[in-house]
Amino acid sequence: MYRTHTCGELTGKSVGKNVILCGWVQRSRDLGGMTFIDLRDRYGITQLVFNMETNATLCKQARKLGREFVIQAEGTVAERSNKNLKIPTGKIEIIVNRIEILNASEIPPFTIENETDGGDELRMKYRYLDLRRNIVKEALELRHKMTQEVRNYLSSKKFIEVETPMLIKSTPEGARDFLVPSRLNAGQFYALPQSPQTFKQLLMIACYDRYFQIVKCFRDEDFRADRQPEFTQIDCEMAFVEQEDVLNAFEGLVKDLLLKIKGVEFDGPFPRLSYNEAVEKYGNDKPDIRFGMIIRELSDLVKGKGFNVFDSVEYIGGICAEGCAEYSRKQMDALTDFVKKPQIGAKGLVYVKYNTDGTCKSSVDKFYSEVELKKWAALLEAKPGDLLLVLAGDKNETLNALGELRLEIRNILNLISKEIYAPLWILDFPLLEWDEETKRYYAKHHPFTSPKSEDIDLLDKDPVAVRANAYDMVINGIEVGGGSIRIHDRQLQQKMFNILGFTQEEAEKQFGFLMNAFRYGAPPHGGIAFGFDRLVALFAGHDSIRDVIAFPKNNSGRDVMIDTPATISDGHLKELSLQVVHQKK
Amino acid sequence: MYRTHTCGELTGKSVGKNVILCGWVQRSRDLGGMTFIDLRDRYGITQLVFNMETNATLCKQARKLGREFVIQAEGTVAERSNKNLKIPTGKIEIIVNRIEILNASEIPPFTIENETDGGDELRMKYRYLDLRRNIVKEALELRHKMTQEVRNYLSSKKFIEVETPMLIKSTPEGARDFLVPSRLNAGQFYALPQSPQTFKQLLMIACYDRYFQIVKCFRDEDFRADRQPEFTQIDCEMAFVEQEDVLNAFEGLVKDLLLKIKGVEFDGPFPRLSYNEAVEKYGNDKPDIRFGMIIRELSDLVKGKGFNVFDSVEYIGGICAEGCAEYSRKQMDALTDFVKKPQIGAKGLVYVKYNTDGTCKSSVDKFYSEVELKKWAALLEAKPGDLLLVLAGDKNETLNALGELRLEIRNILNLISKEIYAPLWILDFPLLEWDEETKRYYAKHHPFTSPKSEDIDLLDKDPVAVRANAYDMVINGIEVGGGSIRIHDRQLQQKMFNILGFTQEEAEKQFGFLMNAFRYGAPPHGGIAFGFDRLVALFAGHDSIRDVIAFPKNNSGRDVMIDTPATISDGHLKELSLQVVHQKK
Repeated sequence: MYRTHTCGELTGKSVGKNVILCGWVQRSRDLGGMTFIDLRDRYGITQLVFNMETNATLCKQARKLGREFVIQAEGTVAERSNKNLKIPTGKIEIIVNRIEILNASEIPPFTIENETDGGDELRMKYRYLDLRRNIVKEALELRHKMTQEVRNYLSSKKFIEVETPMLIKSTPEGARDFLVPSRLNAGQFYALPQSPQTFKQLLMIACYDRYFQIVKCFRDEDFRADRQPEFTQIDCEMAFVEQEDVLNAFEGLVKDLLLKIKGVEFDGPFPRLSYNEAVEKYGNDKPDIRFGMIIRELSDLVKGKGFNVFDSVEYIGGICAEGCAEYSRKQMDALTDFVKKPQIGAKGLVYVKYNTDGTCKSSVDKFYSEVELKKWAALLEAKPGDLLLVLAGDKNETLNALGELRLEIRNILNLISKEIYAPLWILDFPLLEWDEETKRYYAKHHPFTSPKSEDIDLLDKDPVAVRANAYDMVINGIEVGGGSIRIHDRQLQQKMFNILGFTQEEAEKQFGFLMNAFRYGAPPHGGIAFGFDRLVALFAGHDSIRDVIAFPKNNSGRDVMIDTPATISDGHLKELSLQVVHQKK
Repeated sequence: MYRTHTCGELTGKSVGKNVILCGWVQRSRDLGGMTFIDLRDRYGITQLVFNMETNATLCKQARKLGREFVIQAEGTVAERSNKNLKIPTGKIEIIVNRIEILNASEIPPFTIENETDGGDELRMKYRYLDLRRNIVKEALELRHKMTQEVRNYLSSKKFIEVETPMLIKSTPEGARDFLVPSRLNAGQFYALPQSPQTFKQLLMIACYDRYFQIVKCFRDEDFRADRQPEFTQIDCEMAFVEQEDVLNAFEGLVKDLLLKIKGVEFDGPFPRLSYNEAVEKYGNDKPDIRFGMIIRELSDLVKGKGFNVFDSVEYIGGICAEGCAEYSRKQMDALTDFVKKPQIGAKGLVYVKYNTDGTCKSSVDKFYSEVELKKWAALLEAKPGDLLLVLAGDKNETLNALGELRLEIRNILNLISKEIYAPLWILDFPLLEWDEETKRYYAKHHPFTSPKSEDIDLLDKDPVAVRANAYDMVINGIEVGGGSIRIHDRQLQQKMFNILGFTQEEAEKQFGFLMNAFRYGAPPHGGIAFGFDRLVALFAGHDSIRDVIAFPKNNSGRDVMIDTPATISDGHLKELSLQVVHQKK
């Protein structure tokens, strides 16, 4: 037996006990004739004491221990004179009578502290050391807790966890699949799942009624910030449900998590916004509603006054930045630069300073009288002291830019707290999007999403006007989950495939098994999938999902610790009947 | 809302209630003026009643419903005159006043019953229908329950669940990896994990102390009966532990599962056998100890009596088949044929019938007197009426054949019950095996397994004599789990790689990250992994792991339902910088 206790459990009650602890040397201090060592393990820190007077040999031995040495220490629990009330073990220390070095350590490449001197790349290369830092460990402990709570909650609601296969079939629809060559079937490939979508639908057809799984999914994307080639979903599906049933069920899950994990009680149902309403009020379909600053259209108010910029565009809209009327030239320039960034894409920024003395000062004074500007202010619900920010252009692009500007102002004014959780549902998504480049429709959600029954007639006449029985859950501006009621009718599914440009043959090859399953009594069903990494990051107060993944990949999809992907032997390639062909770029 | 209740919850207490149910038509019976329909969902079966006299239109409608139609039915709960006490809902029926067909069904290709008329292949092709059968559903429900219990138990013991990556690095050691080509790193590959072995060791080095995960693992093997290319492990690791700590921890887990899932209380510690003892007594390292029939060596007793077959071999051993002295010629021939099968490999079978009248009759009467044969009987603890079965040859092969024969007799005599669970630990495995073909040592467990400290000296002198700190848990003749104390010392690990024939460079390339991690304070650690599919099959009383996997692959690694692996488009291949090269066989 290596230890009698962990480094996190001894308290005042244990004084006088003989104990054995194991852990890592966090810190060592020599104070006159005494040496103090903070011994750390997963559970906490306990102070070890060595006394030069009573045991010089042992004390000298202790002084040789370096940071991150792994040791075993035996001794007696004693009350500390200099108590540390910040940690549970801060009232005691161990008067050590024996130590053993279980393993030495070289000096770690960065300090094992919350505020470390190690850069991102270094910490990723030595992720096993990075994981020792409290802040990382706490995130993974939170993830563990959330995982168990999700499973226990859903199990208590009669959801059954079913493992769906990882080696499945490639589908050309949606993002790119990762492929897995089959050695025993030369020239053939499995694909890793982007989600267990079709399998969970089959489980509903198979009568499993309520399914869930916390499951790894894979997407071979060109890497963007905060995307991982492998990520984790809470994947769920229910049979004999309408949209309302699904919303209620998973509102329940998230409320349970907020309460059990964060101690936050959420009264009443989550707010709901239609997709159109969200875009018009917040400039996007994942609004952060922890603060107002709602976008309003000014077109009727501002057009026809001789200002050509406004007269010539589709849409003019604005927001009100509270208390910013006194922004300096420099601050205004920064905002203008922000909206002109390529990813925001506005041509320029019109402002109205609604001064505290009641006067208005704007960048378009030439065209609009103070009376007119005050009408803008009234529409945007501005008070004296506020700043109106107005953008103009194509409707969708301008709304998007206003949405980004709104978030920028949120950040500048520090309007929100990470400890506040503002969930809502976005509903009534469009079913289809038209892609001008490939001249075809794409499913906004996926090809299995059911159109609203009242819009089915529009499928032929005006496909992009069809609304879907699809929904997203958004918390604090982050899309944490999304789902839909699925098609369960063979004819309708066939029609969707047609609209999406599948030939009958392609549909049969890719999804024949599902179309076949619809022949044998498919119940109405629908579900949702949560991005679990994002949900954990949100609860942990971290901005990046990398902070809540034990062994993440970098932005090029590389694990720099184990150094993968990597080349493989020619023999292995040959077994797979494959040859690498380096293309000219 | 589709339904007010499920088909499994209405009882006598609900009589008089108006309810709406949804489900599948399991069976329909017309009895005179009445029609009865068994409506089935995941939760049970409820009887629907239609009366020609009171509602002829509805009754006619009901008579048109085919098997597996999905319907919604509204009506009033009534007490049944003809009660079915075998099911919880058997006391009531629903007097239906409205039905709606939610989806029709073609006639299913096999009957949805426990005893179905569908063959294996047909059921796999329509797995979503096969999954509707009670016997399959119950296995998956059991799997769900076991999954939750494993997680809750381990969480309560402070194990933390950490997700390790699926896209890792290929290692040439052990079985073949499945590979995943990286599009963004042309010519490079990820590998799917055969187990999270190195990651869980890194988690121990990272101070996580107690880790677990129920995780998919992958092995690209030439398919054998009851192997799946993807399978599920309960993967666990602990730091600051000796072998005894690990055995105790996971004996606890299995006892908890036996109690909570099967209601079986197991008193006292699990029996333990050394590897050598297991092989000598049971002919293999995964003995079924639900029954005795222990193998004993007869060499000393039988050699030197002029029987050349026995005199010329390394080993002679036997077992006692209780009560089989009166086996007919035909039965004896069957046993002889059994041991001569290529996979058993014995040259012949010697028997002694110890008759109920106390006389002995044997196939080697010419060489051994009755007095001598009775000595054999005494050694094998036979009573009058028993049959002694004796094999001779090389020691290991003969023990193996005797082990197989022992299991065959078990099956013939129906000696065991599936409801009895007889777990034990096998300890002291050899660390290394010598492979004559490739002229090198292989790790019996894996290259990270620690040798017993008292055997470390033998590493240079006599490598195959070195025993490992490795252990398997066996239940009813099935190896359900195995693990070891790991090496945590850099030098020792280096030495192991040397013995296994890795060059320094290869070791660095494959496992450099682990060797590096050992530099920074690696604690002593060890763990175990359970084959979860096997464990569930064992608890479910199924012989094949396929019966407890929702969507299994067949013996060629193919999912015949979704028809994968499959060819992919040239475009996709090109993106991966790959070309298929069909080799001549």
